Amino acid sequence: MGARTPVFDDVTAASRRIAGIVRPLTVIDADAELAPSGGISLALEFLQHSGSFKARGAVNLVAALLESDRLPRAGLVSATEGNAAIGFAWAAKRFGVPATAFLSRSAAPATARRLRELGAEVRVTGATRAEAQHAARRFQEDTGAIEAYVYDEVLTSAGAGTILLELAALRPDLDTVVCAVGAGGMFSGIAAVAEKLSIRVVGVEPEGSQALHAALAADTVRDVEIDSVAADSLGAHRVSPAALAWAKTADACSVVVRDDAIIDARLQVWRHHRLAIEHGSATALAALLAGAYRPRPGERIGIVLCGANTDPTDLIR
Amino acid sequence: MGARTPVFDDVTAASRRIAGIVRPLTVIDADAELAPSGGISLALEFLQHSGSFKARGAVNLVAALLESDRLPRAGLVSATEGNAAIGFAWAAKRFGVPATAFLSRSAAPATARRLRELGAEVRVTGATRAEAQHAARRFQEDTGAIEAYVYDEVLTSAGAGTILLELAALRPDLDTVVCAVGAGGMFSGIAAVAEKLSIRVVGVEPEGSQALHAALAADTVRDVEIDSVAADSLGAHRVSPAALAWAKTADACSVVVRDDAIIDARLQVWRHHRLAIEHGSATALAALLAGAYRPRPGERIGIVLCGANTDPTDLIR
Repeated sequence: MGARTPVFDDVTAASRRIAGIVRPLTVIDADAELAPSGGISLALEFLQHSGSFKARGAVNLVAALLESDRLPRAGLVSATEGNAAIGFAWAAKRFGVPATAFLSRSAAPATARRLRELGAEVRVTGATRAEAQHAARRFQEDTGAIEAYVYDEVLTSAGAGTILLELAALRPDLDTVVCAVGAGGMFSGIAAVAEKLSIRVVGVEPEGSQALHAALAADTVRDVEIDSVAADSLGAHRVSPAALAWAKTADACSVVVRDDAIIDARLQVWRHHRLAIEHGSATALAALLAGAYRPRPGERIGIVLCGANTDPTDLIR
Repeated sequence: MGARTPVFDDVTAASRRIAGIVRPLTVIDADAELAPSGGISLALEFLQHSGSFKARGAVNLVAALLESDRLPRAGLVSATEGNAAIGFAWAAKRFGVPATAFLSRSAAPATARRLRELGAEVRVTGATRAEAQHAARRFQEDTGAIEAYVYDEVLTSAGAGTILLELAALRPDLDTVVCAVGAGGMFSGIAAVAEKLSIRVVGVEPEGSQALHAALAADTVRDVEIDSVAADSLGAHRVSPAALAWAKTADACSVVVRDDAIIDARLQVWRHHRLAIEHGSATALAALLAGAYRPRPGERIGIVLCGANTDPTDLIR
């Protein structure tokens, strides 16, 4: 694997850095109402600061930069429009570091509002995400700010991997962990832990956002089109090379689910557990409920419900 | 105290009966984002089967009736329109017992739908709740069915009291438990445990639904008017004598919160923890956030978030 593939030691280092800053993982067991097959635990990582797992990687990045005195005066800059931006803004606020967020005019108003609440300077620039990214790049070159999302994928990915360290401590007999895949940062961090603990890792993507599945088919990362109800959190055109490398290891697998299965899984979680999760989180559960991943009898499965930055309006029929 | 006041032994008996049937309590700790005062744990009892704590008392009642061969062929009948009806229907289904639910035409359509999903026979009868209750009483007299909600308040109340047994096991240094009060069934069961474990119990009511507060003021149960955003789950015109008796014991207290504090507490829980709770649950938290109950420094508080049978539509501004 390449130099920028997170490994187990990266995750244990992350775990030490983020301890006492991020919220510990909460796990509940699903019962027959949700999952007749049994043996399913739900990792409620959406209870995390910032409403998604992204706070873990962001805290790990900022803490590591501060440790090594590498954090510039201009702080962090981001040009992502979803959970990552909110996670970085939360971490920046937590450490008292400036954060500047570039959003396109097409970004959800709720994202801009949440970023401002967290003290980030929001600059709405350009009609498209590409234009906002271009402006962020110029800001980074002018000021020396660190481009949060791309600066060090090992640190952000390793931060997310701590989810499995905690899940495995709470459910020591875990056989398999199931998580959604966007650009693959969380998947890589979790896979690095899974291999060490002899746990199978299943990456789940929407049919309309399958960058990892396509990379595996082509045996190289390549661009895919995005058209999915979960695009707001998972819609990455391209997966990281680290995610592809981890997906090719022995006890990893990649499955795809349809949008209707994602929508249904999200409604089932509300109906049976009164938890309002985002479609990206529901993607992981959909693999079990729709049969895209079929466990063997007695297999103990942990499903990472990774975010709830969702509009709950449509949970009521 | 009177013969129908639940005591600690009722709760430990309930705990044995409901073990393995109801879901165990999940507890998370609030941090400075939600509660700057610190030391607050949130008991996520809304994750319970049926979406509220009512499943505990209902399971305890049905299990006790089956144990003593007192359950008639006609099963259970209810004429309540909220969480209690759903909890009893859930327990009846779990034990394969018939359940008949009388609703007025003013009941929420979602309640009827949920009851039917749980296999209850729903009879929409009369324009008002009083008319539906009258019809249920006639049905009970004709068939011998057990009127679930009033048949044995000790059993239902003791079922709810198991929440504190589990909370105290998970947070052994708990000083105080805070719960919302409607007719006072949960409050009584929890108070019976609290006294035994030397934990203070705080009952919280909306300003517009203060049957316990009024009973304490008058030193007798009396009817109150109901006008509160939390009326769907807490709106009882009269509190049980048991609740009044427990509220008068040494380390119990009763506080009242305004509707705007309830609405704000519910939004804060969504904003900081991505949990969608009902106004009744938020009532307990509002006592802390709005200062109706002021803990001493270092006091460790558990707040029971007891239900989430809510329309989450209004969580998005």
